Amino acid sequence: MSSQGFVIWFTGLSGSGKSTLAEALAPVLRERGRNVEILDGDIVRTNLSKGLGFSKEDRDTNIRRIGFVASLLARNGVGVITAAISPYQEIRDENRAMTEGDGAVFVEVHAAATVEQCEARDVKGLYAKARAGEIKGFTGIDDPYEEPPSPEVRCETGLDSEERSLDQILDYLESRGLIGKAQS
Amino acid sequence: MSSQGFVIWFTGLSGSGKSTLAEALAPVLRERGRNVEILDGDIVRTNLSKGLGFSKEDRDTNIRRIGFVASLLARNGVGVITAAISPYQEIRDENRAMTEGDGAVFVEVHAAATVEQCEARDVKGLYAKARAGEIKGFTGIDDPYEEPPSPEVRCETGLDSEERSLDQILDYLESRGLIGKAQS
Repeated sequence: MSSQGFVIWFTGLSGSGKSTLAEALAPVLRERGRNVEILDGDIVRTNLSKGLGFSKEDRDTNIRRIGFVASLLARNGVGVITAAISPYQEIRDENRAMTEGDGAVFVEVHAAATVEQCEARDVKGLYAKARAGEIKGFTGIDDPYEEPPSPEVRCETGLDSEERSLDQILDYLESRGLIGKAQS
Repeated sequence: MSSQGFVIWFTGLSGSGKSTLAEALAPVLRERGRNVEILDGDIVRTNLSKGLGFSKEDRDTNIRRIGFVASLLARNGVGVITAAISPYQEIRDENRAMTEGDGAVFVEVHAAATVEQCEARDVKGLYAKARAGEIKGFTGIDDPYEEPPSPEVRCETGLDSEERSLDQILDYLESRGLIGKAQS
């Protein structure tokens, strides 16, 4: 098994399952011998980006900071999982270039539930607030989400089980030699 | 040799030799088999803290961010070197607690050149500007610097050679088992 670092970069709408998948994935990677860090949107907003808002510029800054820290970790052999909406392809591509430039592997994973699917669940009630105009600039409602045209993994999180999505990601990581096969 | 991560936290006035020592130390640690990352004030201001100023609150935020990233790296086995002025003991102590709470080692190194010594050299011309009032809130002139009361290593960077200071730091790291002995 390689000890090459990597960044699993989840992208997707609010409520699309990014954090759920990140939390489920981390212990599996640890069992397979990897050091793992999760950088989710909330951790980063607290520790690195307090004071930033939700304008395009502030969102971009936030996502670049996550990318900077993810790359620092990955180039030291860590398996990093990020779970921020990261709506813009340009910034995701910048982060990919930085990670790959550092000799680590960038794995873009699209949690591809649609607005309709996310809104139907609306676990945190955020879509209802966005529709009511109580939250402005909400991704997918009145702020854009740019789907990745060619992610390494596309999980149909609006349709498939969590287990199925996890298997897709683990299969990809195995195929790249980034984790060993599961013990059977 | 341990592969336990650590943070070498330089603190000292502008021009006290923190960055010089950090740059000299990094290749030696790499030769002795450690992964090393330097987080100096400029790198961090560009990538993590753009938009922050030099008020007490903004300085504290900047130093906390460095500490957060340093701890993330150190708990994954990296030898991290930080080289920001970090004038306040309270924030340095917070960062120590975070790093140690993550199971890594925190090594506070005071680059102890005095204001008079730093000002006499004034490599970047900043002290002259601060005296002329062109820079406000300059540490050691019109902003406080709190000396660490009990740093792991105190380097007399205003008097001693760079080599002597490096040896002090390397001796300390060897004594803690964080690096192996030099090949002779």
